[in-house]
Amino acid sequence: MNGAESLVHTLLQAGIDTVFANPGTSEMHFVAALDRIPGMRCVLCLDETVVTGAADAYYRMTGKPAATLLHCGPGLANGIANLHNARRARSGIVNIVGDHATYHRPLDAPLTADVEGLAAASSAFIRRTESAASVGTDVAATIAAARQFPGQVATLILPADTAWEEGGVVAGTAPPTAPEVAASDAIAAAARLLRNGRPTLLLIGGAAMAETPLRAAWSISRHTGAKLLLERSPARLPRGRGRVQIERIPYPIDQGFAAFAGIEQLILVNTTRPVSFFAYPGKRGALEPEGCDVLVLSTPEQDAALTLAALAETLDAPDIAPADPGPRPTCPDGAITPEKVAQSLAALMPENAIIIDEAISFGRGFFPGTHAAPPHDWMMLTGGSIGDGIPMAVGAAIAAPGRRVIALQADGSAMYSLAGLWTQARERLDVTTIILANRKYAILLGELAGVGANPGRTALDMMDISNPALDWCQLAGGMGVPADRATNINELNELLAASLRRSGPSLIELVI
Amino acid sequence: MNGAESLVHTLLQAGIDTVFANPGTSEMHFVAALDRIPGMRCVLCLDETVVTGAADAYYRMTGKPAATLLHCGPGLANGIANLHNARRARSGIVNIVGDHATYHRPLDAPLTADVEGLAAASSAFIRRTESAASVGTDVAATIAAARQFPGQVATLILPADTAWEEGGVVAGTAPPTAPEVAASDAIAAAARLLRNGRPTLLLIGGAAMAETPLRAAWSISRHTGAKLLLERSPARLPRGRGRVQIERIPYPIDQGFAAFAGIEQLILVNTTRPVSFFAYPGKRGALEPEGCDVLVLSTPEQDAALTLAALAETLDAPDIAPADPGPRPTCPDGAITPEKVAQSLAALMPENAIIIDEAISFGRGFFPGTHAAPPHDWMMLTGGSIGDGIPMAVGAAIAAPGRRVIALQADGSAMYSLAGLWTQARERLDVTTIILANRKYAILLGELAGVGANPGRTALDMMDISNPALDWCQLAGGMGVPADRATNINELNELLAASLRRSGPSLIELVI
Repeated sequence: MNGAESLVHTLLQAGIDTVFANPGTSEMHFVAALDRIPGMRCVLCLDETVVTGAADAYYRMTGKPAATLLHCGPGLANGIANLHNARRARSGIVNIVGDHATYHRPLDAPLTADVEGLAAASSAFIRRTESAASVGTDVAATIAAARQFPGQVATLILPADTAWEEGGVVAGTAPPTAPEVAASDAIAAAARLLRNGRPTLLLIGGAAMAETPLRAAWSISRHTGAKLLLERSPARLPRGRGRVQIERIPYPIDQGFAAFAGIEQLILVNTTRPVSFFAYPGKRGALEPEGCDVLVLSTPEQDAALTLAALAETLDAPDIAPADPGPRPTCPDGAITPEKVAQSLAALMPENAIIIDEAISFGRGFFPGTHAAPPHDWMMLTGGSIGDGIPMAVGAAIAAPGRRVIALQADGSAMYSLAGLWTQARERLDVTTIILANRKYAILLGELAGVGANPGRTALDMMDISNPALDWCQLAGGMGVPADRATNINELNELLAASLRRSGPSLIELVI
Repeated sequence: MNGAESLVHTLLQAGIDTVFANPGTSEMHFVAALDRIPGMRCVLCLDETVVTGAADAYYRMTGKPAATLLHCGPGLANGIANLHNARRARSGIVNIVGDHATYHRPLDAPLTADVEGLAAASSAFIRRTESAASVGTDVAATIAAARQFPGQVATLILPADTAWEEGGVVAGTAPPTAPEVAASDAIAAAARLLRNGRPTLLLIGGAAMAETPLRAAWSISRHTGAKLLLERSPARLPRGRGRVQIERIPYPIDQGFAAFAGIEQLILVNTTRPVSFFAYPGKRGALEPEGCDVLVLSTPEQDAALTLAALAETLDAPDIAPADPGPRPTCPDGAITPEKVAQSLAALMPENAIIIDEAISFGRGFFPGTHAAPPHDWMMLTGGSIGDGIPMAVGAAIAAPGRRVIALQADGSAMYSLAGLWTQARERLDVTTIILANRKYAILLGELAGVGANPGRTALDMMDISNPALDWCQLAGGMGVPADRATNINELNELLAASLRRSGPSLIELVI
């Protein structure tokens, strides 16, 4: 058995059966091993940013790492932006980077680069394999690191000769250890704050954004009067009818301050202290009011369901059903507004849809309008590295066959990872992409004002992507994804309904 | 004057008047400063890999750095692959990365990343500005580093508050220092080798691949009987009628060995020891024969023209005109072969064209067929990070208005930086892109054989990008670049001739 075969066997024995790949020469033995060893689904992506974004979403949907396959330092580099998002989402990824043969690396051939240095920005664990015999144990260690709750990017650097040499040994991987409940002191302290009558907010993040802990948080909130708020960009949030309705930290800084206004006690549940996305002249970066007491109930590494259940028990808080969101919306008509796009989505999405939200500025109002939609999962851009939406749709669709993926995608951001549409076509994934085509970097126009800059012609030109206008129907068609254009809400309703009936991917360019 | 204004003034005073940009919030004051300070050409790119690839080509054409403008660590990450190519091309780039405000960075907001760590893999110089007052001197130091002969990637990290705070001071930049001639000992040693009658090869790279030093090398070769060979992937090579005809190190390893077979003495001129691109089981990585004497005549940091002139003088080698390449080819017809594509190109390219060659496997035979073309420059992928062609075409066209850019572009590689077509359309650049659409990763099929892997269905699927076939006419059209498809050489001749007559960009999908 060569090293590559021991790698594939070790992955499969650990239950890792999906690899997103953009391979090169140094990974040829891995690819060849897949021929001889059944059981691994290998998803080809034409750009590494699609590989890593897909692996991120796969973990968010399954709680199980996928493997990646990247080619040398530059191939890794192309995937870093979405590894950054995966790090912020706390997703586990077994990130495999092929490299030059051990004895070739010192020769400084053209592709030679500092792979460890490039991996460090997003990886919690980095291992370079030294020989075929150590591949198995190295990949097992990498898998264990990737699975460390709640999930981490773990990078294995695989020199080509360690893949092709004989002497590979399959290694077993220790099962992941379950996270622990928060310390009883922290639970008792939170209970005291929630009973002392002062204005209190529970900020919920990470693994606490699952159905059971969210319902416990909701029950605690109803019982104590505390406010609830979510992290700004949930990695994955169960929403819709029958689920609790909670807003998230607004992106604009003044709205961010407003969300915490009057709060005297902030309790952090599986998240970190809230800060503004960017700094602005003369404004604080911390969002909670000055002097606000901050208590860490549970860290992102702890068990949110157990912790909130224990807190509810301490408080004698009964289980309370989520509020009725009212009737399901019907299809709107008229001009295109964010609210109407949300309404159309709520009216038409099937049960258990997966919404990928890289809608950026246009999408800030999508939450209120979709509370009454059928149950669904909502996934956001966690790390601010734009270009995550199309890749995440790939990974979510591979992770959850039978569930419809609807990607709400800003046009400027889509340009960073366009190639993901091709993988959607190749794998015949049930993905509906709605391009929100405002033909500008709308968020930056807001930011220019936010930092007090007064834009002239040159600055405005740098926010304007309308010259020429991107033709999304042609771009998608060129990748093998059928596409149509909607210029009003009725057309959106019709195209969305048609897309949801059709199997495989399709795209709607919504001119907003 | 705020820090951003001092940055723009300092760049302009140093003669740096072009910035390739994909800005975000942290760069808004830089962008706003461009409104108030005339003289800077700001080229918007929709993806950072276009920014850095364009800046690389700009330097190759002008010998003058452009500035980049990238957004935080993830924005830098997206540009690393082409910074890697720029490092291998020894191109000077003033690589400006905006970052969080100094006081915001410790809060670990979502986009926070290890910018220095990400920059290190390709930057010879990294500076983080600490205050508005130091922006001017920091950018001057960055410019000086970028200009250090023959050119380096120099990174300036610019926290947002250092851009927006008042107190900026414009700084002067020291003029670049001229490179030195090689040591007289090295020149004397080379002369001895060239006179001792043993088989000798001059390997020419870097700045020696300019018209004057190449002609000197040619004259020395004719006078002494030494062989000439070029680096595998010239950053920029003057070619065509009236220029010397030299082949480059072949990519396939056995052809690489063959190019050095029988050589007993290897003289390196502004390049490093030749090594195979990848390692292969049981084969050496060094290309020169075992026991071959290797002499460094000049390093890449030395003056090639002075050195070769001095060597020619030592040898009493007279100036010898390049060989006559024969008549200019006429348009071929019939089936599509690499030789006929080269012939069509040689028949039709205008004087002083700039050829961007990311043709990868299909393009290996393009050199012999184009010796008799009109004088032109040829630029290649230097670092093996595919996806450099479309961005380089942007940078070359911006750098050399009035000269036609012809990009020979493999289809798989083009998918990494497709967004560059949009900038070509926006800036109305005279770029003709020929997509060599073989609909596979052809190079990897060769590599699979080269490493002894025997591909089955799964492996072959990973090399196959025909399912679905990319429609390059739609992809280009979606970016605002008119496109047509050629399925035989006559169609290529016609479309190429039409494209060369037309101003602005166009694309030909050549189905091979």
